[in-house]
Amino acid sequence: MPETQPVLIGGQWRTSASARTFQAIDPATGETLEAVFPVSGSAEVEAVLAAGAEAAEALSREPDSRRADFLERYAERLEARKDELVEWAHRETALPASPRLGGVELPRTTGQLRQAAAAARDGSWALPTIDTKAGIRSVYGPLGGPVAVFGPNNFPFAFNGAAGGDFAAAIAAGSPVIAKGHPSHPTTSKLLAEEAREAVRDVGLHESTVQMLYRMAPKDGLRLVSDPRIAASAYTGSRRGGLALKQAADAAGKPIYLELSSVNPVFVLPGALRERGDEVADELFGSALMGTGQFCTKPGIVVLPPGPEARAFVDRLREKFEAAAPGPLLNAAGVESLDSAVSALQESGAELVAGGARVEGAGCRFQNTILRTSSAKLLADPEGLQREAFGNACLLVETGSVDELPKVAAALEGNLTGSVYSDRGGSDDALYERVAPVLRRRVGRLLNDKMPTGVAVSPAMNHGGPYPATGHPGFTAVGIPASIRRFAMLECYDNVREARLPVSLRDRNPTGSLWRLVDGSWTTADVG
Amino acid sequence: MPETQPVLIGGQWRTSASARTFQAIDPATGETLEAVFPVSGSAEVEAVLAAGAEAAEALSREPDSRRADFLERYAERLEARKDELVEWAHRETALPASPRLGGVELPRTTGQLRQAAAAARDGSWALPTIDTKAGIRSVYGPLGGPVAVFGPNNFPFAFNGAAGGDFAAAIAAGSPVIAKGHPSHPTTSKLLAEEAREAVRDVGLHESTVQMLYRMAPKDGLRLVSDPRIAASAYTGSRRGGLALKQAADAAGKPIYLELSSVNPVFVLPGALRERGDEVADELFGSALMGTGQFCTKPGIVVLPPGPEARAFVDRLREKFEAAAPGPLLNAAGVESLDSAVSALQESGAELVAGGARVEGAGCRFQNTILRTSSAKLLADPEGLQREAFGNACLLVETGSVDELPKVAAALEGNLTGSVYSDRGGSDDALYERVAPVLRRRVGRLLNDKMPTGVAVSPAMNHGGPYPATGHPGFTAVGIPASIRRFAMLECYDNVREARLPVSLRDRNPTGSLWRLVDGSWTTADVG
Repeated sequence: MPETQPVLIGGQWRTSASARTFQAIDPATGETLEAVFPVSGSAEVEAVLAAGAEAAEALSREPDSRRADFLERYAERLEARKDELVEWAHRETALPASPRLGGVELPRTTGQLRQAAAAARDGSWALPTIDTKAGIRSVYGPLGGPVAVFGPNNFPFAFNGAAGGDFAAAIAAGSPVIAKGHPSHPTTSKLLAEEAREAVRDVGLHESTVQMLYRMAPKDGLRLVSDPRIAASAYTGSRRGGLALKQAADAAGKPIYLELSSVNPVFVLPGALRERGDEVADELFGSALMGTGQFCTKPGIVVLPPGPEARAFVDRLREKFEAAAPGPLLNAAGVESLDSAVSALQESGAELVAGGARVEGAGCRFQNTILRTSSAKLLADPEGLQREAFGNACLLVETGSVDELPKVAAALEGNLTGSVYSDRGGSDDALYERVAPVLRRRVGRLLNDKMPTGVAVSPAMNHGGPYPATGHPGFTAVGIPASIRRFAMLECYDNVREARLPVSLRDRNPTGSLWRLVDGSWTTADVG
Repeated sequence: MPETQPVLIGGQWRTSASARTFQAIDPATGETLEAVFPVSGSAEVEAVLAAGAEAAEALSREPDSRRADFLERYAERLEARKDELVEWAHRETALPASPRLGGVELPRTTGQLRQAAAAARDGSWALPTIDTKAGIRSVYGPLGGPVAVFGPNNFPFAFNGAAGGDFAAAIAAGSPVIAKGHPSHPTTSKLLAEEAREAVRDVGLHESTVQMLYRMAPKDGLRLVSDPRIAASAYTGSRRGGLALKQAADAAGKPIYLELSSVNPVFVLPGALRERGDEVADELFGSALMGTGQFCTKPGIVVLPPGPEARAFVDRLREKFEAAAPGPLLNAAGVESLDSAVSALQESGAELVAGGARVEGAGCRFQNTILRTSSAKLLADPEGLQREAFGNACLLVETGSVDELPKVAAALEGNLTGSVYSDRGGSDDALYERVAPVLRRRVGRLLNDKMPTGVAVSPAMNHGGPYPATGHPGFTAVGIPASIRRFAMLECYDNVREARLPVSLRDRNPTGSLWRLVDGSWTTADVG
């Protein structure tokens, strides 16, 4: 048995005091990987909280540029270690090394870090607001404690607790991070945290600016998010785990940002189906099976109009799903959960069109799966038929008349995204106006003629949405500057003397390029 | 027994089906007022929810200007009925008719309504954000349901559920309001709601845009904030009531904005005390007893440096407190709660300096009260000695050395405000730098040389702060535009065709004055 891997606490790689351990597997083969990792106990949770509180204090005395330096240095370090990172992420997740991990996800991750650095350096994310007449000025500022970030299994880099979007946003806002790596890819998380720690040293930030634990018992997770020293938490993962953390954080009055399940409904209107049904089916095929369907934004429910084109659409999709080799899922639990979701959907009245069973003997795989149901059944059991099947499965909803499309939209829970395909000639326009407004209130991002996978890191992005897709419909997990403001408090200064104001609120614009709302107008000019 | 007053449901003044009733009192005399009001039962809660959901749907189809028209029309109507409003608010709260109610609070209320109208008409509050390269655009939009607003007892107009800041913000954001009037001033709430209803009709909005109930059982309040149809809630009042509602709303995944207790610490540094101790004592006297101390921002804890000036400060304050006639409190429960808070503070080790007892036989009155304690005692029992005494009472904290001032600051809970008085010569500057950063993370609004009462309706205001003063440190209950964004969801549009975008996100700037963040720069220009 090899030595247990150390945890990152207080800037040091420490041997864990815990006797409980775990190992990850290679999901492509099902083989257990050699490295042994600790399940941290409550003493280690206490230690990261204590050190994180110290780091928060120290960070509040540093200029914003120091955190920007760190984020940039960290991005450089990740690029320098790219081969090793991609190799390990591939082994632990079975996601393709190229292009996915090396060509897309790692560049996205370093891009996010650099965008967060630019935002921290610039400061405009904090909406500095000046009322010269009232003598009142305000700006978003750090929460004054460490932020706990729980990473998911499906993006080993871009949403990793020690490197992803929530991490970058929390650091940009001025908080140290306590990362909870996902137990499916502990070596990847360790490599990331190693580089984070070195980058922290390179720029001379407080050594506890980034800490990392791989795994902890549920009770210790609840304790972490509700501890008086924690500033806020962010969690991406299953609904069950997220809602348990939310309950603990809420009871303690601690903000928590969740990104939970989403079925990402796609409505195909009749004109679009007539005009380009094959094209839409091909797009759906690509989007639903990309990364073996393990995207938060995978199109999980597709609502079709009645008619022969819909039957042709289903046939084409079935052929493509059946012809494609099932990709590996992220871990054995992923197979388990997909299997039970597909069973549960059938129990709720959905029928199998393709797939529906585990693939034996080849690592963590499940057949590419299509289910079908009717809008009548969905409307009769909206909860049962909206269950998320995370992975390479998709539920088609067949309607008896186009009037049922807005009704299905109205029965949907909160989702991250919702897409509507309509024709270019205008024959779908009237129906669009009945479906889109209903869908609008139920999704964070509304798309036209486009599948929802692919979440651009754009200032205009909303990777969020109404409950239960997230915990609050006003926040986004992706997109700078808005994602940063989640981890900030509104600091108001009333009659505070000029020299005592943060530089962003003094009369002189500190950079000449900082956007400030001065007496109702956005400007980069000095005050007065 | 007079007839029971009707409730406002679905645009109609309806006779309540409830058998339970209540009456308000005149707190200046203790006499019961004649009008009888219903305690609404669950059927009426169901009715306002159903009608509110319809109104939300209808509002989503109206242009923003229609809600602006309503808010402006409502302000005009309140002004036209000013005398009656002020008379009743004075009878029900005993707050001075002039200047407080007629000269300050009603103009503030109509001013808020007009600011909210201007914001709704302008649209810049919604931070329209356009990424031309990615084809993604986003803007804050309505939540898609009614907002429940629970008004407090201490501002019968400016924070009333049917007319105050939360009301105005929710309407501006696009939501109908279900107002819960405070049972201490039901006639005032009824008059306001009458004008709201007429203003709704004047401009032709959906008749259920404003509804109002006077009172309900706690279980029905919990049901209201957690119902699937509710969009969000706002509550201003006691910590106990607010946290019960928060628990219910949190469990249902519903946003709730709270403004709870706050002791609004004031730190007087030694130089300021030497320089202008009498002046500071007089300011404290005025601020602490204004409105009989019944402000969310009343200075409840004042931390003094050691030395003879502090003793002179206490003496002067005692004289002024004792010489002033105790004002009436808002109701009998207010006397009860102040009495028990003053007793509890004494049990935690505070000593009486002045007052401390009920005033018998003259309505709802309590002696102007000063307590004192030491920083050592406060640090030993921070929870007990930070208990809010809502009303005309104030706790002075005496320190043995100036090093204890930052320690006291570090022991504080989250508060709405924190003030620091320092001298003009600079002798306090070093101590300021030790106190202010600690206080900064514990308060929403940091003041210099100024008492915290008086909350300007400024775009830069934060009337909010860390838990348990509120439920989230990033939100403010006062100040437009930020207060409006609490009641909004982030609507993202990805690849959505130009004609289908909200007008605020189309290439052409709809007004030429709408501020939009286009490719990283704020501008009022068209796109492209």
